[in-house]
Amino acid sequence: MTKDYCINAKRLWHTLEVFSTFGGTENGGVTRLALSDEDRQGRDKIIQWAKEDGFGCEVDELGNMFICRPGKNPNLAPVLTGSHGDSQPLGGNYDGIYGVLAGLEVLRTLNDHGVQTERDLILVNWTNEEGARFAPAMLASGVWSGAIEKEYALSRSDTNGVTVDQALKAIGYKGKFPSKARPLHACYELHIEQGPILEQESIDIGVVHHAMGQNWYELRIQGFAAHAGTTPMNLRLDALCGFAQFTLAVERIGHRFAPDGRATIGMVQVTPNSRNVVPGEVLCSVELRHPENSALDEMHALLEAAVKALTDRYLKSDLKRLSHYPPVVFDQACVQRIEGAIAERGYTQRPMVSGAGHDACYVQRVAPTAMIFIPCVKGISHNEEEKIYPKWAENGANVLFSTLLKAANEK
Amino acid sequence: MTKDYCINAKRLWHTLEVFSTFGGTENGGVTRLALSDEDRQGRDKIIQWAKEDGFGCEVDELGNMFICRPGKNPNLAPVLTGSHGDSQPLGGNYDGIYGVLAGLEVLRTLNDHGVQTERDLILVNWTNEEGARFAPAMLASGVWSGAIEKEYALSRSDTNGVTVDQALKAIGYKGKFPSKARPLHACYELHIEQGPILEQESIDIGVVHHAMGQNWYELRIQGFAAHAGTTPMNLRLDALCGFAQFTLAVERIGHRFAPDGRATIGMVQVTPNSRNVVPGEVLCSVELRHPENSALDEMHALLEAAVKALTDRYLKSDLKRLSHYPPVVFDQACVQRIEGAIAERGYTQRPMVSGAGHDACYVQRVAPTAMIFIPCVKGISHNEEEKIYPKWAENGANVLFSTLLKAANEK
Repeated sequence: MTKDYCINAKRLWHTLEVFSTFGGTENGGVTRLALSDEDRQGRDKIIQWAKEDGFGCEVDELGNMFICRPGKNPNLAPVLTGSHGDSQPLGGNYDGIYGVLAGLEVLRTLNDHGVQTERDLILVNWTNEEGARFAPAMLASGVWSGAIEKEYALSRSDTNGVTVDQALKAIGYKGKFPSKARPLHACYELHIEQGPILEQESIDIGVVHHAMGQNWYELRIQGFAAHAGTTPMNLRLDALCGFAQFTLAVERIGHRFAPDGRATIGMVQVTPNSRNVVPGEVLCSVELRHPENSALDEMHALLEAAVKALTDRYLKSDLKRLSHYPPVVFDQACVQRIEGAIAERGYTQRPMVSGAGHDACYVQRVAPTAMIFIPCVKGISHNEEEKIYPKWAENGANVLFSTLLKAANEK
Repeated sequence: MTKDYCINAKRLWHTLEVFSTFGGTENGGVTRLALSDEDRQGRDKIIQWAKEDGFGCEVDELGNMFICRPGKNPNLAPVLTGSHGDSQPLGGNYDGIYGVLAGLEVLRTLNDHGVQTERDLILVNWTNEEGARFAPAMLASGVWSGAIEKEYALSRSDTNGVTVDQALKAIGYKGKFPSKARPLHACYELHIEQGPILEQESIDIGVVHHAMGQNWYELRIQGFAAHAGTTPMNLRLDALCGFAQFTLAVERIGHRFAPDGRATIGMVQVTPNSRNVVPGEVLCSVELRHPENSALDEMHALLEAAVKALTDRYLKSDLKRLSHYPPVVFDQACVQRIEGAIAERGYTQRPMVSGAGHDACYVQRVAPTAMIFIPCVKGISHNEEEKIYPKWAENGANVLFSTLLKAANEK
């Protein structure tokens, strides 16, 4: 019974604490941007730990790191787990790195108990998941999965004009292995939820069966800037009032597709943005998310209707779709192994949709994949205040352990 | 019949064109900030023109300039006219200076025809009306009228830390005369409307009987910033959606008090203002205007109700009133002289409320005052595109001529 083996919760928490020093900030968070020196320190530490446990590490052309614990049968496709070690600027201590270090803890626990799996178990640390230093996000798992061109990825540059290729070489993580998917039996990414649902519902573990599709837009609303004192209400073309009407319409779209739909305006820019001038122009972002493509299409249609309604106010508007990521359906067999492992452990669980993008979303394109979520306090993430409790970290790692062992022992 | 005398429209337009070179911008506007070297050039030119026409100029401690055309009887209270020569940054060629130069044109026309009035006629050029370089606006007419302390006004500083007192001395316009109202028979300020009403209704002249009272506010709406992908709609505290609801409520307040009421949100600041983060906070300005104090109070009460409604969304909010300017009721006799002059000239007219603040609003506190508006194209002002037609300039100056002559001949 795999449930008899438990990961070493103290050891796991210690590795998390050690890791939080790489790029640690005054307020207890981290700034560990992809391929920065802080990222290098973290990578070096992972290799050191792997070595101490007897594991080697392969680094590919994109700096993705693969640590292998060999199974009995090298002819069977391996099982992969892991996440990313980079962070947002002023980010938290768990986003990404928790999945890497919990994976390491699984390998160590297998060592502790002398367990030999049928299949190789591979721990991965993906490069530049956050997209904070180099856009787009999930860059290197994207290359590895064939979704993003390698040359394109290597040529992405940060705000100082440093390319991914240069940054990889600068920190010594431009590996020689091709960044290309190999056949895998299963892949699991363990991650903090980054949302409030699990904590709010007091659920131990989320089983992620879908990741949301996303449409990103930019909308420009054009009115006419005018003196706020001399321009009567009926002669105004107030872009901000139009924007307000539009914002409430977008909110309604989100509610209409609850609980899985999301509709968000996060960025707003008002022109001329002066106290006594009727706003002449508003530029804003819009983001729609839903796990089903057909629903996302319906949301898109409602968004277009909300834009069109601005003509009732004689406002001009220009809606541009900036990007479209289709929804991801994770692998059913992968999901079932997680559900089984949670049940054996006696934890509470619920099926979940990932609202955020993850490396696993790209990996699912080339290998059977699923994700495991643990709660995080108040859903706060991408923030120095990001927080999890040691018990949550332990639960998630135990589920990962049982799930990986199950998959790795399938013949 | 005074209507037989007409101002010299070509000469007036020429002075406007000459003046637009002082601080003239590439796009045909002006940047002639108060007490700048560009302002000094304009002031020097006014004194030169006055001298050529045989008039002297007194400058007071605040740099206000008074050009006197003596009447027959020095014991009678004079009649005052004028406006301001400073501009907004990238402002227009007519805001303020039109009233000064039309006043000069009236004096010249009286000279042309050898008319001697009963009372002295005084042309004024007020300092720092715009408030663009030194806050608050209408600073020097405020001192002259006793509404603002002289020491306070002189100590106001620009963004470089230069005080009004220093700037006055630097351009040689720190006069020796006390800045203090003297008894006046009547005062008139001719100005462009800075709004769209006259042009839209094809009316030649606006007779301004009121200026609006104003309340300025700042509102902070506090929600909770959250990941736009992982936070379900029902668990959001979206400060921007609350702001949108509030914005439409403010717009309704304005419409409810139409045609004279104004309700405007001009300035908005969203935090963190990131595409995929639910906004946690919105800071905005609110401005309410109405010519009647009781109505302004009602609007204020409705505003507070709109703020209170944000609690339905579990949002916190903090409304601060930054300032309150009471409405101004102009002098009935002054208004009637304008109406009579327009009727004699055969122009079309309508009574108007000034939505903007003007030097005349302060002068009314100490002397019988009224204002004359001419149209401006599309109501555009505080903008390089500000535009009037020579005919409009001519009409306004003719009305000013007849009005002033009427007042100055009253015994």
